Amino acid sequence: MSRITVRRKVVRLTVGHTPITREDLLAVEEPLEIRVNGRSLAITMRTPGNDFDLAAGFLVSEGVITKGEHFFAARYCAGATDEGLNTYNVLDVSLAPGVSPPDPSLERSFLTTSSCGLCGKASIDAVRTRSSFPVADDPVRVDAELLTSFPDQLRTMQTVFEKTGGLHAAALFDGATGRMLVLREDVGRHNAVDKVIGWALKENLLPLTGMVLMVSSRASFELAQKAMMAGIPVLAAVSAPSSLAAEFAAEVGLTLVGFLRGNSMVIYAGAERIVEDAPAEAQRREGQRTTA
Amino acid sequence: MSRITVRRKVVRLTVGHTPITREDLLAVEEPLEIRVNGRSLAITMRTPGNDFDLAAGFLVSEGVITKGEHFFAARYCAGATDEGLNTYNVLDVSLAPGVSPPDPSLERSFLTTSSCGLCGKASIDAVRTRSSFPVADDPVRVDAELLTSFPDQLRTMQTVFEKTGGLHAAALFDGATGRMLVLREDVGRHNAVDKVIGWALKENLLPLTGMVLMVSSRASFELAQKAMMAGIPVLAAVSAPSSLAAEFAAEVGLTLVGFLRGNSMVIYAGAERIVEDAPAEAQRREGQRTTA
Repeated sequence: MSRITVRRKVVRLTVGHTPITREDLLAVEEPLEIRVNGRSLAITMRTPGNDFDLAAGFLVSEGVITKGEHFFAARYCAGATDEGLNTYNVLDVSLAPGVSPPDPSLERSFLTTSSCGLCGKASIDAVRTRSSFPVADDPVRVDAELLTSFPDQLRTMQTVFEKTGGLHAAALFDGATGRMLVLREDVGRHNAVDKVIGWALKENLLPLTGMVLMVSSRASFELAQKAMMAGIPVLAAVSAPSSLAAEFAAEVGLTLVGFLRGNSMVIYAGAERIVEDAPAEAQRREGQRTTA
Repeated sequence: MSRITVRRKVVRLTVGHTPITREDLLAVEEPLEIRVNGRSLAITMRTPGNDFDLAAGFLVSEGVITKGEHFFAARYCAGATDEGLNTYNVLDVSLAPGVSPPDPSLERSFLTTSSCGLCGKASIDAVRTRSSFPVADDPVRVDAELLTSFPDQLRTMQTVFEKTGGLHAAALFDGATGRMLVLREDVGRHNAVDKVIGWALKENLLPLTGMVLMVSSRASFELAQKAMMAGIPVLAAVSAPSSLAAEFAAEVGLTLVGFLRGNSMVIYAGAERIVEDAPAEAQRREGQRTTA
């Protein structure tokens, strides 16, 4: 069952030419309802595939779980339609015994009526999460030239984007060796990142010390926050970051790189982690590559 | 007070060259809490500016209001910080007497525990809204060549993107004349669209019959839905649409154009509305342009 792309009849029109009707591949977007212990938590519009990872990464991002063993089980709810079919769009996650489900009063759904005197503070608190992992302490150093190779690697592996032009990608790279550990694509960039983090959780790799999270998009506050929640010390984006992403990165000790294109980049926070190779070091790595 | 962009010290690094520390302009991203009649409804990460329009457009998109007079008043909550300052990040909207505030049970925050037997249906229902405006009946025809001029107009007017590379844009064009009515930029493409729709609401232009909503991004399901809720018959995007955006557009009678670049486009739904000028008609319009 491929639900990542779908064929659809479209009209290609070029001014002054006869319109052509043909089939095109589109990136699939469908809602996923994430439940925890039977209770509805969130709905996200996502590209189907790696849904368990998406749910796991979402729960890491929200500060609910930090270890693979916390994510006890997950299943798609059967009987989701009137005909009793499974839509594969509702996922119920069971947390391990002893792991607290999200506190409704802390949920980001903001159903509470808070007094106006605290409103701004309440808002900021509501969008900010707390990490168990101190990314500021991560001593990793990433070679600038190595970093500039990540966007090409990302594009090469973005197989669905190639076909549809409609997906964001997120990938995890080892900051020292430049090895790509995992890449995920999704119509939503937040989902792509959650899928990467959820994969890492299940591989018991959290906190992701020494890693670089690379995204094909811009870097928003929420992506910076997701990186922090997974203990990732470096977030690199092909496009621009927002002001809040940069402020937040500086505050928590996350390195934030934007406009990573060609052989250059702009570093918005934590510039000390991005280094230029000493010639000897470059040669050593070049030697390793040759013998690999 | 300019809160749309902010200066920040950054490091520009090109491999093999000395890093340069300089000041850069970043697009501002801050949370906005939208309240209705004192009750918290949603928080969105947005670029400050046109917040009243953003809130108004959001309420149109959610099906809460359809007329300018429904939006009675709005004010920023004072005393949002411990020091009693106004953060301008919490906006309380007062609806006109007789206009129902959003029903908590219908909110998209999904705090309810619904039975599994209805889960998929509940999810879909939760993300779908109902429009008062039947876009399917809109008889507008848009000239293909005219449509291909919109992306350039969008880029020319995107003044903040020019400086920061960090903003999405949404603009409203008259489908018959090609005149741009309004353009808004935001870190979030949904917000840019809500700001456009909110502006139109306050100008008493709803439903936006005969209009084209042009976005600088991809076309997601949610953007297609926002177009429908405002009665806009044509949604055009620079990039790809998702499968659900195309399905939804076909279902409700919305024309959906993607990959609008250079002199060509791909039409995913409602192709009958995009027409090539008869030569006489083209000449007539060309004459108008010359004499304008």
